[in-house]
Amino acid sequence: MNSFGRIFRVSLFGESHGEAVGVVIDGAPEGIGLSKEDLMFDIGRRAPGLNGTTSRRESDEPIFLSGLYEGHTTGAPLTIMFKNGDTRSEDYVAFDAMPRPGHADFVASVKWDWENDPRGGGHFSGRLTLPLVAAGVVAKKALEDIDIHAELIEVGGCSDESKWPELLEKAQAEGDSLGGIVECKVDNVPIGLGEPFFDSVESMISHAVFAIPGVRGIEFGDGFKAARMKGSEHNDPFGPEGPTKNSSGGINGGITNGAPIVFRVAFKPTSSISKPQKTYNFKTQKMDTLAIKGRHDVCFALRTPVIVEAVTAIVLADLV
Amino acid sequence: MNSFGRIFRVSLFGESHGEAVGVVIDGAPEGIGLSKEDLMFDIGRRAPGLNGTTSRRESDEPIFLSGLYEGHTTGAPLTIMFKNGDTRSEDYVAFDAMPRPGHADFVASVKWDWENDPRGGGHFSGRLTLPLVAAGVVAKKALEDIDIHAELIEVGGCSDESKWPELLEKAQAEGDSLGGIVECKVDNVPIGLGEPFFDSVESMISHAVFAIPGVRGIEFGDGFKAARMKGSEHNDPFGPEGPTKNSSGGINGGITNGAPIVFRVAFKPTSSISKPQKTYNFKTQKMDTLAIKGRHDVCFALRTPVIVEAVTAIVLADLV
Amino acid sequence: MNSFGRIFRVSLFGESHGEAVGVVIDGAPEGIGLSKEDLMFDIGRRAPGLNGTTSRRESDEPIFLSGLYEGHTTGAPLTIMFKNGDTRSEDYVAFDAMPRPGHADFVASVKWDWENDPRGGGHFSGRLTLPLVAAGVVAKKALEDIDIHAELIEVGGCSDESKWPELLEKAQAEGDSLGGIVECKVDNVPIGLGEPFFDSVESMISHAVFAIPGVRGIEFGDGFKAARMKGSEHNDPFGPEGPTKNSSGGINGGITNGAPIVFRVAFKPTSSISKPQKTYNFKTQKMDTLAIKGRHDVCFALRTPVIVEAVTAIVLADLV
Amino acid sequence: MNSFGRIFRVSLFGESHGEAVGVVIDGAPEGIGLSKEDLMFDIGRRAPGLNGTTSRRESDEPIFLSGLYEGHTTGAPLTIMFKNGDTRSEDYVAFDAMPRPGHADFVASVKWDWENDPRGGGHFSGRLTLPLVAAGVVAKKALEDIDIHAELIEVGGCSDESKWPELLEKAQAEGDSLGGIVECKVDNVPIGLGEPFFDSVESMISHAVFAIPGVRGIEFGDGFKAARMKGSEHNDPFGPEGPTKNSSGGINGGITNGAPIVFRVAFKPTSSISKPQKTYNFKTQKMDTLAIKGRHDVCFALRTPVIVEAVTAIVLADLV
Repeated sequence: MNSFGRIFRVSLFGESHGEAVGVVIDGAPEGIGLSKEDLMFDIGRRAPGLNGTTSRRESDEPIFLSGLYEGHTTGAPLTIMFKNGDTRSEDYVAFDAMPRPGHADFVASVKWDWENDPRGGGHFSGRLTLPLVAAGVVAKKALEDIDIHAELIEVGGCSDESKWPELLEKAQAEGDSLGGIVECKVDNVPIGLGEPFFDSVESMISHAVFAIPGVRGIEFGDGFKAARMKGSEHNDPFGPEGPTKNSSGGINGGITNGAPIVFRVAFKPTSSISKPQKTYNFKTQKMDTLAIKGRHDVCFALRTPVIVEAVTAIVLADLV
Repeated sequence: MNSFGRIFRVSLFGESHGEAVGVVIDGAPEGIGLSKEDLMFDIGRRAPGLNGTTSRRESDEPIFLSGLYEGHTTGAPLTIMFKNGDTRSEDYVAFDAMPRPGHADFVASVKWDWENDPRGGGHFSGRLTLPLVAAGVVAKKALEDIDIHAELIEVGGCSDESKWPELLEKAQAEGDSLGGIVECKVDNVPIGLGEPFFDSVESMISHAVFAIPGVRGIEFGDGFKAARMKGSEHNDPFGPEGPTKNSSGGINGGITNGAPIVFRVAFKPTSSISKPQKTYNFKTQKMDTLAIKGRHDVCFALRTPVIVEAVTAIVLADLV
Repeated sequence: MNSFGRIFRVSLFGESHGEAVGVVIDGAPEGIGLSKEDLMFDIGRRAPGLNGTTSRRESDEPIFLSGLYEGHTTGAPLTIMFKNGDTRSEDYVAFDAMPRPGHADFVASVKWDWENDPRGGGHFSGRLTLPLVAAGVVAKKALEDIDIHAELIEVGGCSDESKWPELLEKAQAEGDSLGGIVECKVDNVPIGLGEPFFDSVESMISHAVFAIPGVRGIEFGDGFKAARMKGSEHNDPFGPEGPTKNSSGGINGGITNGAPIVFRVAFKPTSSISKPQKTYNFKTQKMDTLAIKGRHDVCFALRTPVIVEAVTAIVLADLV
Repeated sequence: MNSFGRIFRVSLFGESHGEAVGVVIDGAPEGIGLSKEDLMFDIGRRAPGLNGTTSRRESDEPIFLSGLYEGHTTGAPLTIMFKNGDTRSEDYVAFDAMPRPGHADFVASVKWDWENDPRGGGHFSGRLTLPLVAAGVVAKKALEDIDIHAELIEVGGCSDESKWPELLEKAQAEGDSLGGIVECKVDNVPIGLGEPFFDSVESMISHAVFAIPGVRGIEFGDGFKAARMKGSEHNDPFGPEGPTKNSSGGINGGITNGAPIVFRVAFKPTSSISKPQKTYNFKTQKMDTLAIKGRHDVCFALRTPVIVEAVTAIVLADLV
């Protein structure tokens, strides 16, 4: 199902080139002050326009359909919609015969028996992360003191931010794309969030993070490095203020321990590249060459920190 | 909540040193042949006894409380229980004052207001993975043709299996512990499992995998490496038989694409080590030295491949 | 939460005098042909205009926001929205001080800490049954052969349809209102729907039916009369074609038995009456006289058979 | 699924003549004092032994498998099991060919493809209400001040309690059975429980009540009578202390209004009667005569008030 959460429940809807994309938030607390302006800051962080991101322009203006009265949430389901405008569906005509490598074109067609909306990736489009970001703003407001901050720490394998513009330019010139790694840190986390086993905080966060298109991995605290450490190195002794090394990323036994939650997310390079790719043509039943036009990010990871924050906020708003 | 799944629903219960641990499986298909012997093979793979694993011995004998009639599942909830026997609770007396680093002692006490069962980690104990393995056997049987195989590919940072005994011995001699990495591969996966966004296959698998105690990270296909690749390297062109490189680990847009699902899981080193650790004594309110006796794995990752298989089977049984 | 269903999941949103009301249907099968015209028939059955119903006029025109492509459902979440137009909020000004007897004004204010949208009952308005009817149309299409038919069998205690116009006129003249009873029958039900205990068919249907505003009771088969019968009278012997008397309304042990599902639903008289009512004024803290203007049904039960059908279809679409 | 609740989650398991019946309660608050004795009072109210109830004797002794430590709930899943003892399966041999009218024998066999446990009704047995009562005790303790009281108000259509012994004797002498009506009242209910539409209090309570075997109807407040009243009669004006007539049974718009919740439940007469019944023999494919031996209640409704209380407590513990 396209929804998440037990108490603070988020349901996404929409397609890239359909009428609209949007989100219904069921269980948002009443009395949260919320305006279009509140949403626009995070929406702006997701928007294209940075070097290395798509030139598709949308108004990205939120429309409140329900759940808001005199500038405050009412307690009833809150619905936020974004109209689709600047669509160029003709760019996507050829992909029925030649599904784009790395995209959901193929699986969507098989899963939904060729009834899926193929334009712009349809329901699988990254545009669905727009209402996700909107829901994240509401969740952040519901969380009050808890502070969530994500940032890009690596682009194309390079962690030196000063070199990124160069790398992006080069990839663009080659008609190629780059991936990246986002680190998210949550401060002021109360002790005791999460449940043992199936509803561990890592379970919930990873569940939500893998809902973001293009994620390939997630690790908490020392992460994959922990598998190469000794117990005496990795173990995190308590001090008077709580854990001292935070090797477990703020979580023990699935439960928050009061230290900051820390995790990293690996994003693949953008799948849509203008560089020609050899791939199968299901119509001619032969290998063929695909050149993807359209407007695409060189490195969509640049736009993802705010999305990682959003899903993290949604998880925590549900757990709190 | 301590349950997982929408259709094939698994609920864990029990404590390490309580009366029993067990699992209720709601939604298991009727007519599955199931005997104690069927369970014992996978249970044996989880059992201690390998070099580097704990010397605690339990009968680990499954008792069917419900849902089985004349050797077949009935369609009604299936309950499998394991009695606890060989417990030495006195080993755990001191941890109220000095919570063990890396364990849930501290968070469990705070979360449940000091009402939690602290003996042997209580409900947070790794012993709960025993009913999880039992549920995995049922799930595997429900999956029929789908084949799930997990194996340890790294111990203490070393991928050469021939050197593991030496590494384990050395760690044990030092009173220390090691971590490891498990790789899981699923063959014969039908195209179209999973849902876009929140119920993506990666979301569901990672959710279930992080329910296993001691997991620090998960990655699918090219994983974290993908973040350092170019689109033209990472992209996975279709051939006549489907994806050719499987860089996405069998999943596009959250949906299985027919190629094998491939993922890797990082396990931390065992937290309980006999080597003395400096940690906070909440009673004396001073730093103190903790020496953990008890019987513990040098590298519990050795016992986890069958558990990774189990949770994967549970996810797929729910999705199919 | 304002959603229902595990597989065919319906989420309602909107307020009477807000921007819009609508529904997101997650899990609707792909490939269902669906047009505005398809919806208008059932929407028309719910519309006011019959003798004894409100004179409020809305276009009631459905707008498909997502999940529909080239006239067919895509498999992705289907969102149907109805804009609100003909609102007269000033009619509702006084109810903050004097909550209308029989309405949710009072509880909504307390529950949501006076942040609720009070105009026209806000989220509690009967207008929310409009998207419910739309979801019902989709559910009926998903059910194919199963045939659901509800009709009013009693108005104001009278089961002789020929006398209803007279009763309604009289009640209207008195500024009063009437209740009614709806009977619903489902034909061509496959054997085996439902689960024992908590997800019995009666549990699911009654859950959904009590979501309709103004329902006071529900009974299946012989219903309350069964409590006054002997076992030998009530028992339903099998014949070669299945149950012979259908005293249990098509359900045994919570599971459909192949006979038609039959149940009756009691609707209260409309709460909004123009006749003056003595009730408490929370501002003056004295008893006071309330005269409700606005435009209201004399007997809203007249409009409910199609709503009962809708929720029944939603339940069955989820169970099938 | 055989579970109920979002926060306070109850999962039933077991069969009448299997190893055991039981319940897992996930989400029970920590720190509730709980002993076998606490359970025995309500268990005793459900037990046979009253005039008109079955002579089957079970120890009905609860065994705590998990979630209890030093006499208090721990916060982890609480599992309560009851072993089955006094079973006479041979009584049930014939029902494969001739399913008992009014029982689930037939639908269980079809639903689960003849893999169901048929002994004593298997998972559909009324014995499953024993763990339900146990869960109810825990829920009542979790509810603290809220007071739930159910009682039988009608047996065989007669509301004069003094005449019941006579009626029961007569029915027993005739090999027949009687039904009854239970009224449940909940005092000290906080204002604001429940959600509009799908999670209305009536929706939740009716959902849980129809999980009890043998229920034919439920009505709140004025119930079916409301359908025959005028608005001016049924409406419930507010006084300084809240609703004055409680015609809606303590619920407006699905939300509790502070007045007592009041509802009535209709139970059918016991289906198992010793009087011979003409019914279909699926083996001989002819009508045949069935005489049900075994030990059965003349009027099982006598044992149900405590079960109605239990499911009501479970609902409220989940909503609070």
